[in-house]
Parts: sequence; C-alpha cells; structure tokens
Amino acid sequence: MTSSLEPHRFHRHAVTPDEARRRILSYIRPLETETVALNDSWGRRSAEPVAASHPFPPYRRSAMDGYAVRAEDLPADVTHEPVTLEVLESLPAGSVPSFTVGPGQASRIMTGAMLPDGADTVVMLEMTEPEATDGRTYVRIAKSIPKGRNVAEIGDELQTGEILLRPGRLIGAGEIALLAAFGNAYTAVVRRPRIAVLSTGSELLAVDEPLVPGKIRNSNAAMIAALLREAGAEPTVLGHVPDDADQTERMIRQGLAEYDLVTTTGGVSVGDGDILVDILSRWNGTTLFNKVAMRPGSPTTAAELDGKLLLALSGNPGACFVGFHLFAAPAIRAMLRAGQPERGLFQARLAEPFLKLNAYPRYIRARTEFRDGTIWIRPTGIDQSSLMTTIVEADCLMVIPPLKQGLQVGELVSAIPLGEGHLG
Amino acid sequence: MTSSLEPHRFHRHAVTPDEARRRILSYIRPLETETVALNDSWGRRSAEPVAASHPFPPYRRSAMDGYAVRAEDLPADVTHEPVTLEVLESLPAGSVPSFTVGPGQASRIMTGAMLPDGADTVVMLEMTEPEATDGRTYVRIAKSIPKGRNVAEIGDELQTGEILLRPGRLIGAGEIALLAAFGNAYTAVVRRPRIAVLSTGSELLAVDEPLVPGKIRNSNAAMIAALLREAGAEPTVLGHVPDDADQTERMIRQGLAEYDLVTTTGGVSVGDGDILVDILSRWNGTTLFNKVAMRPGSPTTAAELDGKLLLALSGNPGACFVGFHLFAAPAIRAMLRAGQPERGLFQARLAEPFLKLNAYPRYIRARTEFRDGTIWIRPTGIDQSSLMTTIVEADCLMVIPPLKQGLQVGELVSAIPLGEGHLG
Repeated sequence: MTSSLEPHRFHRHAVTPDEARRRILSYIRPLETETVALNDSWGRRSAEPVAASHPFPPYRRSAMDGYAVRAEDLPADVTHEPVTLEVLESLPAGSVPSFTVGPGQASRIMTGAMLPDGADTVVMLEMTEPEATDGRTYVRIAKSIPKGRNVAEIGDELQTGEILLRPGRLIGAGEIALLAAFGNAYTAVVRRPRIAVLSTGSELLAVDEPLVPGKIRNSNAAMIAALLREAGAEPTVLGHVPDDADQTERMIRQGLAEYDLVTTTGGVSVGDGDILVDILSRWNGTTLFNKVAMRPGSPTTAAELDGKLLLALSGNPGACFVGFHLFAAPAIRAMLRAGQPERGLFQARLAEPFLKLNAYPRYIRARTEFRDGTIWIRPTGIDQSSLMTTIVEADCLMVIPPLKQGLQVGELVSAIPLGEGHLG
Repeated sequence: MTSSLEPHRFHRHAVTPDEARRRILSYIRPLETETVALNDSWGRRSAEPVAASHPFPPYRRSAMDGYAVRAEDLPADVTHEPVTLEVLESLPAGSVPSFTVGPGQASRIMTGAMLPDGADTVVMLEMTEPEATDGRTYVRIAKSIPKGRNVAEIGDELQTGEILLRPGRLIGAGEIALLAAFGNAYTAVVRRPRIAVLSTGSELLAVDEPLVPGKIRNSNAAMIAALLREAGAEPTVLGHVPDDADQTERMIRQGLAEYDLVTTTGGVSVGDGDILVDILSRWNGTTLFNKVAMRPGSPTTAAELDGKLLLALSGNPGACFVGFHLFAAPAIRAMLRAGQPERGLFQARLAEPFLKLNAYPRYIRARTEFRDGTIWIRPTGIDQSSLMTTIVEADCLMVIPPLKQGLQVGELVSAIPLGEGHLG
C-alpha cells in the first residue's frame, strides 16, 4: 500500500454506537437557566423544580351547580319524605359566603364557588325544586346523597409543596395549565442550545441555485436545522463550503467559539475530498471517535476543542439523519437537562421479513403501525443511506443487530422513537 | 317546576360526539395559501403539491470513493489474475469528467461525483492499489464486482414529476430535505388559523394576581393557547371576563369578527352564571349543539355567526382539554387542509381494570406504554374532569363506550392520539 492511500483514513478504530454516545455525553454540560413568560415556555424544558404554592383547590369548592346542605338534613333514603330547606343566599362562582348553613338550611351554590361553613354536601340543581313562601326562599329535595358528594375539599388535587414540574421536563399544555393555576406567570427554562450547521462538499449548490452538471443542492443543512428545532435547539446555518481543509477548519473553529456545538455534514469518509480527516489529523483538541460500528453512518466523527464539541455527520442524507438521532439528539437533551439523554428503545413486531444480513448493527428508518393492540414496524423504503424519501415517513429507527439469518414477520425488533413526540 | 329553573338550560338535545364534530366541520373552510422561506416551513402544512423538477440523482453518481471502471475489464472471479487499469483523471465530488473511460481504463472518483461516460461500475478505494509507472498512474484491482455496483443511475431515487409533498402534509425535517434537494427555496403553506381564547367566570383571577378567597387563577386560557400552538394555530388570549352575558357577548362578537374561530371556556352548564346559555338564547346565528352525549364535557357548545365558529368549552380544565381534542383540533386540521381532520383511533390493551360504569361514552385521559410489541394503556389518574394533574401525563384519550360491566386487564380499548406527534 502506498503513501497516497493515507492509511489513517482506512485504519480507524471503530467504537460501538453506545460508546460513541457515551464519549459525546461526557463533554456535554447542561445549559444555564433563563426566565420566560409562561406562554413562551411551551416547548421549552424546565430548569427548576416548581412546587405548589398553596393547596388546590385553595378552598372547599362546589363541583356542581346546586345547593350546599348538611347531609344529615337530607332524606335518609328514597322511602322518606322530601325535605324542604330554607335558602340563605345564592353563591355564584367567585363569591364568598356570608352565612353559615345550619340545621334545616341551605345555600344555592354554583360550580366552583366556595362552600359555606356548616355545609358538607352539594345537591345537584337537577335534583331540587325551589319554593317561595312568605317572601322567603326554600328548596325541596327528595333524594338522598352521601355526605361530601360534589364537594372538592381543600388540597384534594394538590397539597402545598407538591412538585408541579421537575427540572428537564418538556413543557406542554398540561404543564402550562398547572403553572398558571399556581400563579407562575414566568417560568425558569433551560436556554436553547445554539448550534451551528455547516455543510461541506464541493458538489453542493445552495437551495436557490440552478442545477449544473455534477452538482446537487445542499439538502442536509436545511434538514439538520429542522431536526435541531424539533429537538429544542436554535440552529444557525453557516451555509456550505467546498472540500477545502483550511477554509472548513476556519469555519469550524469560528463556530466552536461562537456556538454551543457545531455540526458538519460530509467530509468524514475515506475519499480525497474528505477534509475532516485532514483537519482532525492536525487538531489540537481531542478526537472522540472517527468510526462507529454501525450502518449507515460508520464514518461519523466527533471531536472536542476547548470543551466544545464538533459532531461531524456523514454527507449522505440518510446516514446524516441516523447520525443526528443517535448522537446529536441525546447531546441536545443533555444540554437541556432532560432526565434521560437517550431515548428508550421500544419493541415492535416486524410487518415484513428483514433479510439483509450484516456484520454491524443497522439503524433502519422505519414506521410503526398500531393494529389490534400490537405495534407493527416496517422499513420506510429501500435501505440505502442516500435515499431521502425514506426519511419522510420514518417515525423511528429500527435497530437490527448483526444478523446471521434473516428475521421473519412477527419477530420482535427494537426501535428508537424519533423526535420529541409520544412514541416510546 | 317553576320558571326560575329555566327549562332550556336542562332540556337540551344531546348529540353524539361524532355528530357534534360533523356539524363543526360543516362550517370550516380551508384557509388560504401563504409563501414562506423553506426553513420557516417547518411545522407548517403544505398548501400545494410539489413535484420533482428533475430526476434525482440528476446525473449518474458514484455512491463510493473508488475507481469508475467498465465491469467487463474486471477479473471475472477470484481465480483470475488482478487487472491493472490506466487512471485517466481524478474526479472529486462536484467535478465534471473530461475523459470517457475506454477498455483498460479507469478514473479515480469520489462519492457523489459524476460518473464518466464509458464507466458503469465503481470499485471501492479499499479494494484497489494505485501504481505509478513512467509518469503514468495505474490502479490494480484484484476483486470482481457486479456491473452497476456503487453507481446511482439518473432518477434512481425520484423521477421528474414525482410528488414530493402533498397538500395538507405537516412539514418536518424529511420534507424540508426533499424540498431543498429540488431547489424549493420557498414553500407554499396554509396560513395558520388565528384563534381567540376567552375565559369566562367570575371566579377567575389572572395568573399573576394573588389568591383571594373564593377565586382561582385562570389556567384554561394558557392551556388552550398552548394546545392551539401544538395544533398549528396562532392563539390570541383575550383574557377573562366575569359571568356577565352582555360583556361576554360583546367580546365573542368582536372575536368572531377578527379571528377565524373563537374558543371560550366556562359558562356552558346549567348554573346561574352560565351566561353562554343566555347569549345563545338570543343569538342571531345558528347554535350547532349545546349538549354532547359524553363525559366529561357534556355541556360543550358550538354556534355559528356569519360563517365563523364559536366553540364554547367547559370551564373544567379536564373537560376543556377533552373538548379541545375532540372538537377544536379537528377543526384546526380541517382549516390547515390536513387530509383527515379527525385523528384515527388506535387500539391498546388495558393495563389496569376499568370498572367505572356509565351510560355515556367516556373520554379518559390516558397514557400508553409499549412493552414487548404490545401497546398498553392506563388512565393517568383519578377520572374527575377537574383534575389538571391528569392532563400532564396524558398522551391519548381512552374511549370507553357505555358499559354494563367493567373492563379487565388485557382487554382492547380504543384511544385517540393527542397532539400532532407520532402516536396512531
């Protein structure tokens, strides 16, 4: 083998995907806290625990429109005569009772209103009949209901000090409702990671450039930017550079100085234009790995400089997509203080045979289908790392271990859910 | 029964949830198209079909770093001698070949580069050995590979005119990559529905107000605003109004004039402060329904005025949440031209018994868990419509039909996925 083959390009030490991720995560620091208005906290991750500042409900509340009564005044059961109670006042929601309900008395009360002292039960409006006699108001109740019915006691839902929100939690509509109920007009959230996106490759055109022979448009930068937004990061697209090591290195170093993390696409393989290899051969930081025992995306590379990470993904759109989910997404979740940086695997049943054998674990873009309580899974298309069309339909990555024989329909396989959605 | 009972509050005609949704959708018109920069189309719905403007790959591409050769020049099999081919040129990605590969010739070629005429196959770099003799460059190849290997033909992935994106499609990272690859720097998307959020209730405080007896903070407006964003709409929170029919009606009418749809919370039940009932009793538009045969959220109400919809949800946070997903979310998807306004149901197995009987269909906030290829489901907490804490963990609504006996662990139940995520 001659020197022109550049043995360092070929003789790389492959690490497992788990080890690669472990090395990446060892360089990730959780990001700082910032405070935003409650409505702007949607889709952010919480930075601090938030506890209930008071019990909820904060007062004894009626859960129905009806009459607040003392249960002992009601008919004992259906065989007894209806009772007639004197109505003291009417309590709309938001009001404060003026009277204590004594024996033979009731107060008309609306849903959400504060229960008057003395009362312990609310009889639904539909079960009552108002009566007016001598300028006084009465209510006739024929039915018996158990003591405490239709009353929410103080703290029935939450007690003071109970945790509403744990750090690292993704804030959705439910979290916002809880925070609002306890008066949190502002939320402490984790700053979004600012991540630079740089595409390398002399074959690349900008999206708005006309096609010319031998060139294709840069689709990876736009894809990675979208994946970053999906993951809760703030992408900055630095554009694309030709396969020029000096220019690319300048851009990467500038990116590392200005952003929390730099992602690149392309230039990581064994070819003449794979300039990431040259850049890292003279790198004054640490190369974490430059080969991962997996398909696609085996040349995926990561390096560190002054505590900042460069994640160099494959230029192949499919391999780039897989590399993002396996390595960038957990790094972002760790920066955002998510409890668990890695998505848990789930198991699904193969909806079609998988017959392609391989000595390496494969991460196949796949789609789940729920049928009769079973999760079925199938690849979204021909398994070639270049095929962008397989990305569109994918909702998970099917994890196929090294296989000596094919897998049949109905066999269980593991999969990694994609995105921050509900799967898994 | 006396007049004070206001029979129209009680004697409402209940429609099924499906019929309620059908009535709502009959008033929904798809929204107009707007054009945004490609990167801003993430999370939007496409408005127009987009077709491939050229084949992809647009030229014969090498899928590997190696040598472009004529397969017939390679050794026939391993028993044959290695061949030595003359190297014509080196083709980095982005270059255009200058020479046709003839018999006994090859061109060094990098991944993504255009294949030279004459060549039909690429031999991986790792399988080759370069040689230099007399100032000329040669490559020695010992292995035999099939014709066409490592070459992506024009249109292998997509042909001109193939549909990249259908109208109504939610645009994610994969769609953006495809659009970028075909030079779509701008995307035609459906305008986001502008939706007003009004909370009614004299018991309500603003989120930043201190707690006072008999009052609670308005959590519904913030929750609905977040749900609207999740659904792809643009919420405007109008705040909250006391239980005053005139004031509320003014706000609703103003909202209907300015927004695509108005949602309210509260005021729809049978109590004294349920002012939506009064407003609609003098309404000059159509009341679509004011009772739905379901729990929770049976008083959910919808009305139309000048072609605009008012969706009046329950003030109970849990019932409000359910009503949003059953009625508001499909309306928004229809405005956004989603192919199917209603989320499809999926089936899951009960992870715990469900013993609460009811004459009406119940929509229970629930969470799925994937175990060994099976989708398990369990309610997220005590089934009371008021409990906000059950919203936080929910990823679906379990649909329980009217039951005469309880359901046991392992029985299949239907569920509606929540959000625009992957479930279902």
